[in-house]
Amino acid sequence: MIYFDNSATTKPNEEVLDTFHKVASIYYGNPSSVHSFGLQTEKLLAQARRQIASLLNVGESEIYFTSGGTESNNLAIKGVANQFRNRGKHLITTKIEHPSVENACEYLKKDGFDITYLPVDENGRIHLDDLKKAIRDDTILVSIMHVNNEIGVIQPIEEIGSLLQNYPKILFHVDVVQGIGKVPIDFHKSQIDLATISAHKFHGLKGTGALYVREGVKLTPLLHGGNQEKGLRSGTENVPGIVAMAKALRLAFEDFNQKRHEMEKIRDYLRHELIKIDQTTINTPEMHIAPHILNFSVEGFKAEVLVNTFSEKQLYVSTTSACSSKRNEPSKTLLAMGVDQKRAESSIRISLSYENTIQEAERAVKVIKSSIEKLLPVMRGSI
Amino acid sequence: MIYFDNSATTKPNEEVLDTFHKVASIYYGNPSSVHSFGLQTEKLLAQARRQIASLLNVGESEIYFTSGGTESNNLAIKGVANQFRNRGKHLITTKIEHPSVENACEYLKKDGFDITYLPVDENGRIHLDDLKKAIRDDTILVSIMHVNNEIGVIQPIEEIGSLLQNYPKILFHVDVVQGIGKVPIDFHKSQIDLATISAHKFHGLKGTGALYVREGVKLTPLLHGGNQEKGLRSGTENVPGIVAMAKALRLAFEDFNQKRHEMEKIRDYLRHELIKIDQTTINTPEMHIAPHILNFSVEGFKAEVLVNTFSEKQLYVSTTSACSSKRNEPSKTLLAMGVDQKRAESSIRISLSYENTIQEAERAVKVIKSSIEKLLPVMRGSI
Repeated sequence: MIYFDNSATTKPNEEVLDTFHKVASIYYGNPSSVHSFGLQTEKLLAQARRQIASLLNVGESEIYFTSGGTESNNLAIKGVANQFRNRGKHLITTKIEHPSVENACEYLKKDGFDITYLPVDENGRIHLDDLKKAIRDDTILVSIMHVNNEIGVIQPIEEIGSLLQNYPKILFHVDVVQGIGKVPIDFHKSQIDLATISAHKFHGLKGTGALYVREGVKLTPLLHGGNQEKGLRSGTENVPGIVAMAKALRLAFEDFNQKRHEMEKIRDYLRHELIKIDQTTINTPEMHIAPHILNFSVEGFKAEVLVNTFSEKQLYVSTTSACSSKRNEPSKTLLAMGVDQKRAESSIRISLSYENTIQEAERAVKVIKSSIEKLLPVMRGSI
Repeated sequence: MIYFDNSATTKPNEEVLDTFHKVASIYYGNPSSVHSFGLQTEKLLAQARRQIASLLNVGESEIYFTSGGTESNNLAIKGVANQFRNRGKHLITTKIEHPSVENACEYLKKDGFDITYLPVDENGRIHLDDLKKAIRDDTILVSIMHVNNEIGVIQPIEEIGSLLQNYPKILFHVDVVQGIGKVPIDFHKSQIDLATISAHKFHGLKGTGALYVREGVKLTPLLHGGNQEKGLRSGTENVPGIVAMAKALRLAFEDFNQKRHEMEKIRDYLRHELIKIDQTTINTPEMHIAPHILNFSVEGFKAEVLVNTFSEKQLYVSTTSACSSKRNEPSKTLLAMGVDQKRAESSIRISLSYENTIQEAERAVKVIKSSIEKLLPVMRGSI
């Protein structure tokens, strides 16, 4: 099979799984227990925290473990909103965020918060001028994603961070779920206060994630209880999953150093070959993009029909984000970029991992071409 | 080693770990993806839900997956509070709940909710009269644990459920984390609306849990996003962990049928032997108790000193709940039962699993006796 749906989730690395198994079966104590068996587990937890902090070039006291990207995004956004609601009730984000950012904001709207959704240009990027104009006296948070999950565009995080330095009361949250290990980002240089990561996007395990919280930033917790994670996130820590995440992140950074050019080559090959097909348009711009995502539309075709046809040939790609795909909604990122509804409805996302090869890309192109040819007479009738 | 701290966490079953590994490495697709590879994962998820529902004798549409007991307790309590805050802002719980129930309630207090903490008698049980008296027109939730995590006492859940049938506007939440697979409970017969389970307490994996939500009960979600779990709990489902939890629960129910009498025998042996030691008092009552927990105090000793001394001999027990143990707080359950501060501070919890043997119990008694003898001269000086 050809698995080109790595932005939905990735195959856990075998070494990562071995680590998980070892920790789960040998060091199964509760890190909150006071006996030496619990302390061993606590040490592993501390070590994983140090490793992750070191890879992200932040302090170990700034890493908090959660159940994944959705929880981290909710904790960051609602955590700031609940902590600083007396200071102001205005949040700024973009029209192209992951549903866990968008829907956390929509929930807060019902609670009296005002949300500004920044537009993006035809290349999917926000303009700093728009952000500047949106800032108000009661703005408490700006939440802007690093790499877009649908088309792979990178936002100008460092410039946004610089701009926000003029507004010391506004916190800056960045969802770096899609970019981590693929597109370098410096949390300090970009003046980021909060950043979300999710392990299963870089060959770690589902159910594990982290939130970077800059030293000194206070948040209201979402989960109350035994005061694990310095009270910010109660609940027995999933130590095997967390240690596995540390390993997966280290491997992702190694892959970045060794394989990112090959990944870019595969993406560019796909772009070059797919554009030759009469019916296709490439939606991912050519600049400011991640190496692993390529979004294209096939004129006259409903995306889900194509995804299913490719799927029969064991080529796995997606329509829009996995979270939205079941509802058959067209990509909101493309709509925000001004792409028309029909082209958005016929859009396909290819998302690569460092394990994918140029040979797989060649076979994928063949499957895509032959599927379109096969479906063409049918589709001309149906749309 | 002798691991007698199974109420803090259990050793994952090897079969459960194998299941996890298999699902994580082969069926790693995102269950929200529309392609056939994602659908395979979705089928596994549906199957696990059916299995768990069937074991609990509830409908599969009534099982929602979470990251664990703390999240399930928070979701139940805050979910009801936020959903029905216009109906009333009064919650009833007990003085002996797990910190994730207590602190979720304390958080709501700051948000204008009134919380009644029911007292318990000298046997650690609430009285129905107290509950009845506490009910007000604006009561929206009663949250009472099944098996207490510190002393193992069982609350009269069925009688509480019957009483609450007279108040159809009040929802009934039960934290069944400690009891599941050890003390039978019938969700329907007990008229339970919401019930919390956590996999790592029955040889499943940390980071996985579930909330039973009776058909028709509406809750406000804690995590917003891609609308997984029918919108109640967004976030990519941890399918390997969930399938592993289904297996662990099945094995726990098998163990219950085959090994619960042995477990009771071990507990009773421990009670019988420990009571012979001059300095000990047994805190766990003799009636209405779970088979796996025995709490005792050693006069004149600080519990943490004993736990550390036992720990040197690789006998692992705990002071109070794992969540509270690091803060060296005495058991709040014992204090609520009217036990004096000193005896509460010298209390030790032994918690068994179905894997423990009578031979381990015999060795444990020897370690406990010899440790007390060794420490006696020192402690007499220090306290």
